[in-house]
Amino acid sequence: MNVAGGAAERLIGRWDRLVEANPAAEVIDTLLRGVGQVMFQNNPVTGLLFLVGIFVNSPKLGLFALLGVAVSTATAFLLRADPTLIRNGLFGFNGVLTGIGLAVFLQFDPLLIAYVAVGAAVSTIVMMALANALAGWDMPALTAPFVITTWLMLFAIYSFGHLVPTPLIAPVAVEPGAPVQTALRSLPFGGAAGATLPNLANSVFTGAGQVMFQDNAWTGFIFLVAILVNSRVSAAFAFVGSILAMLTAMALGGSGVAIYHGLYGFNGVLTAIALGGLFLMLTWRSAVYALIGVIFTTVAFAGFSVLLSPIGMPALTAPFVATTWLFLLPKAGFRALEPVPMGEVSTPEQVREAQTGRWRGPEHGPAPGTAP
Amino acid sequence: MNVAGGAAERLIGRWDRLVEANPAAEVIDTLLRGVGQVMFQNNPVTGLLFLVGIFVNSPKLGLFALLGVAVSTATAFLLRADPTLIRNGLFGFNGVLTGIGLAVFLQFDPLLIAYVAVGAAVSTIVMMALANALAGWDMPALTAPFVITTWLMLFAIYSFGHLVPTPLIAPVAVEPGAPVQTALRSLPFGGAAGATLPNLANSVFTGAGQVMFQDNAWTGFIFLVAILVNSRVSAAFAFVGSILAMLTAMALGGSGVAIYHGLYGFNGVLTAIALGGLFLMLTWRSAVYALIGVIFTTVAFAGFSVLLSPIGMPALTAPFVATTWLFLLPKAGFRALEPVPMGEVSTPEQVREAQTGRWRGPEHGPAPGTAP
Amino acid sequence: MNVAGGAAERLIGRWDRLVEANPAAEVIDTLLRGVGQVMFQNNPVTGLLFLVGIFVNSPKLGLFALLGVAVSTATAFLLRADPTLIRNGLFGFNGVLTGIGLAVFLQFDPLLIAYVAVGAAVSTIVMMALANALAGWDMPALTAPFVITTWLMLFAIYSFGHLVPTPLIAPVAVEPGAPVQTALRSLPFGGAAGATLPNLANSVFTGAGQVMFQDNAWTGFIFLVAILVNSRVSAAFAFVGSILAMLTAMALGGSGVAIYHGLYGFNGVLTAIALGGLFLMLTWRSAVYALIGVIFTTVAFAGFSVLLSPIGMPALTAPFVATTWLFLLPKAGFRALEPVPMGEVSTPEQVREAQTGRWRGPEHGPAPGTAP
Repeated sequence: MNVAGGAAERLIGRWDRLVEANPAAEVIDTLLRGVGQVMFQNNPVTGLLFLVGIFVNSPKLGLFALLGVAVSTATAFLLRADPTLIRNGLFGFNGVLTGIGLAVFLQFDPLLIAYVAVGAAVSTIVMMALANALAGWDMPALTAPFVITTWLMLFAIYSFGHLVPTPLIAPVAVEPGAPVQTALRSLPFGGAAGATLPNLANSVFTGAGQVMFQDNAWTGFIFLVAILVNSRVSAAFAFVGSILAMLTAMALGGSGVAIYHGLYGFNGVLTAIALGGLFLMLTWRSAVYALIGVIFTTVAFAGFSVLLSPIGMPALTAPFVATTWLFLLPKAGFRALEPVPMGEVSTPEQVREAQTGRWRGPEHGPAPGTAP
Repeated sequence: MNVAGGAAERLIGRWDRLVEANPAAEVIDTLLRGVGQVMFQNNPVTGLLFLVGIFVNSPKLGLFALLGVAVSTATAFLLRADPTLIRNGLFGFNGVLTGIGLAVFLQFDPLLIAYVAVGAAVSTIVMMALANALAGWDMPALTAPFVITTWLMLFAIYSFGHLVPTPLIAPVAVEPGAPVQTALRSLPFGGAAGATLPNLANSVFTGAGQVMFQDNAWTGFIFLVAILVNSRVSAAFAFVGSILAMLTAMALGGSGVAIYHGLYGFNGVLTAIALGGLFLMLTWRSAVYALIGVIFTTVAFAGFSVLLSPIGMPALTAPFVATTWLFLLPKAGFRALEPVPMGEVSTPEQVREAQTGRWRGPEHGPAPGTAP
Repeated sequence: MNVAGGAAERLIGRWDRLVEANPAAEVIDTLLRGVGQVMFQNNPVTGLLFLVGIFVNSPKLGLFALLGVAVSTATAFLLRADPTLIRNGLFGFNGVLTGIGLAVFLQFDPLLIAYVAVGAAVSTIVMMALANALAGWDMPALTAPFVITTWLMLFAIYSFGHLVPTPLIAPVAVEPGAPVQTALRSLPFGGAAGATLPNLANSVFTGAGQVMFQDNAWTGFIFLVAILVNSRVSAAFAFVGSILAMLTAMALGGSGVAIYHGLYGFNGVLTAIALGGLFLMLTWRSAVYALIGVIFTTVAFAGFSVLLSPIGMPALTAPFVATTWLFLLPKAGFRALEPVPMGEVSTPEQVREAQTGRWRGPEHGPAPGTAP
């Protein structure tokens, strides 16, 4: 990174000057940050790499991600939300997820474009609603706006003949004690089954990819690199979160196919980033706390999935939202942890530096590229 | 309206004097306002016309509406809730809906009367609970007390042999991609199927009627007239809300039978009234915002219905409550919208007049009959 | 009680001196209070008797109760929660219930011990989260941390091959109007069916036992005696709550087997204790209010059970939590009731005495043994 770092820093500096001078560039920068914020990274380069990762796997989903981020950000602009929040991409990430989420679970149709546009617009309204509702506890909305909006719009499709679900939507009748195939393997079956190194690696990287519904280990790898550009600590927690979620699911005997395809991992990735130095000051205790959060998130993923199995609907990132809210809400109640005030959330590195006094950054937003 | 207006105004003036002098008339006035508040109309004439509309369709449901409003209002009185709130009918409307809702979905039995009485009493407790819980955000409880109370009491009936559901309760196994019959038609089949003018008109008016579970276009028509007595703006939004909800359901391919019988409309009617000048100052932007709210409410109705389909239970007005809460909670976060403080909510007309300074009304409660 | 009272008081005095001097005794005292707090009794003798009651019925469940209370209390200590709250057992009771709850519904396996430990630790985090979230309304978390944690961990088990549910987990397809066997009887069938005195007594006492999942009338009897040690009023409300819940279920035609085994009773027992003089000052009006709460809790138990029947999961104490929250939230909104500030909650007797001025106790925590 250090060798490439100099060249990258020069490029970023040039981009920053362009953004200040050119409104079109500012719009692009805002939308890229919106994409980056899907994993809490207020950084246009991270957002760009996220898009690269999505397009590598599926240009169609990439276009829906762009539609989502554009409509949700434009909605915030038209409703005159706080310009600083818009500029930091906080009205973009739920739109990205709503766009991809609806396009993954519903077959393409021109009507789907309008459906996604409505969903992305509503995700911005729900974002502002939750931000306001949670302000008294100084708590983040996380991806709850995406979950609420997309859940209602997905559940609805059984009632609507003009929108058809993809085969990913499949109601399942639960059966107590039914055996679970625990051997790691891909679907359709290919490669050796079991806890081989390729299978484990596929699970870990696809776990990162599935945060944006990308069933692709390379995409997941690009996502992790994209986070690394903005924060080493967050990238490390994302990686460890995916591993620990996989191990938790394996220890409990989760479906090997689901584990292989990263379905047990993506919520753990998000919980690990959120609790790992971002909303709680990074210490040894908070790191262990974050790991317990990842374990519980993995169980909660199975729990939400079962709850929705009679209608065959996905848990989305609800397990992450629920666990992270519950783990952050204690706030000052646990004196072993130090919550980061919402106005000072940037990267784990900057928060620690600001606190230890070695570096005094701006209170809002990171200084992209300067952190690590 | 203007010709009849003079005579009506004199009648209302006489009634107002009677109410001040006679405690029995005051009780009746309070109960009628409770009925009117089902659609946010703090007006005894509106409440009276609502009752007329219900009795035209079903005297049985009319009696249960009376039982509900009486018990819920009496409970508030016995528990010594704020007399002004009681007087404005705010402890009556959830009782009305609980009474009709339980009587529509459960077969008649003497036990049902006791069951409704308990439900109506509890709806008042839940109303006070939510009013207190939401006070910090200056948010209304809407019909959430009815939804919470009635959901729990309806879900329960599978466990109770002494209460039998009507055929309206029917569990459905969801099936992805199953075809939906989209042609508008009545059940049992009669008249021409399809988007004919009579069918569209039936859908729009019954959409208003279904706010109180009345599957009857004439009842819906009377309801709209009843709203018109108190506020032209609210009546217009109710009408447009029902039309837009119908069109949304048709565009997405909803069940033609459900659309014909107004099931896609009633939540949209309520959302349209709430967001259309009542809790948000009426402007062009807030009107568009209200219409987006109606569209999302319609989708949310399908979403809640599917979520409850394994146990065959109705969505009630949960789609309206969820959407309206989410659309109101942003409050000052969206500077393009002007939220009306809860203490100043009356009719869209009075709120605008108070704000533009042409008319200075009392801060609490409408002046019935003077508005339009 | 008066004859034994003197000897008991001397023993308790000796224990109190030991606790002050010996850290190990202090730990034991803390854990016993944690067990006592399952039914709001901050009293080590009550906790000890609760454990006796559990071990009488099932030593296995007794051990899981101990594991739960130990891990959840230790977690609070490690995270440095308020020592006074820890000392009063407020981080123990959710762990007790999580421990027993998981062990009742899942077959034994060494993995279950780790699963319970994670659950107990998370229950403490959720407890602190809810305590903080509810502080603004001065509301108690009740057993919601147990319900949230245990629900997610139980729902999950269909996905996990290494944990197998017991036969108590059984999905049921709902069928409107299906007949319900209402005659009280045990399972497996034994003894006379119907509302005989032994059957009624079994229902009432087992209703108390089922608060901690103990299907045993003697255990329930010991639980009631254990409460009596700390508060006559709470014991009376627990007893009356169990009776009224049983009668409500019988009046509505609930399953006779479920009623016999106390399944309709345990939520009512908890609601009766909570609303009966503990969180609301005891008066005739609040007593009637508490009884309406018990009736609604019983209906809500059926409602939650039906809602979860497609996945065959238990309602746990959610009906109690939901009802008690809704009945307490009105706070000062109902001037007929006097809410007890959270900091002054101890026993109904002490709260009344403190208020009437006859006795001035410490503001936090009861003085064990002196109450009755």
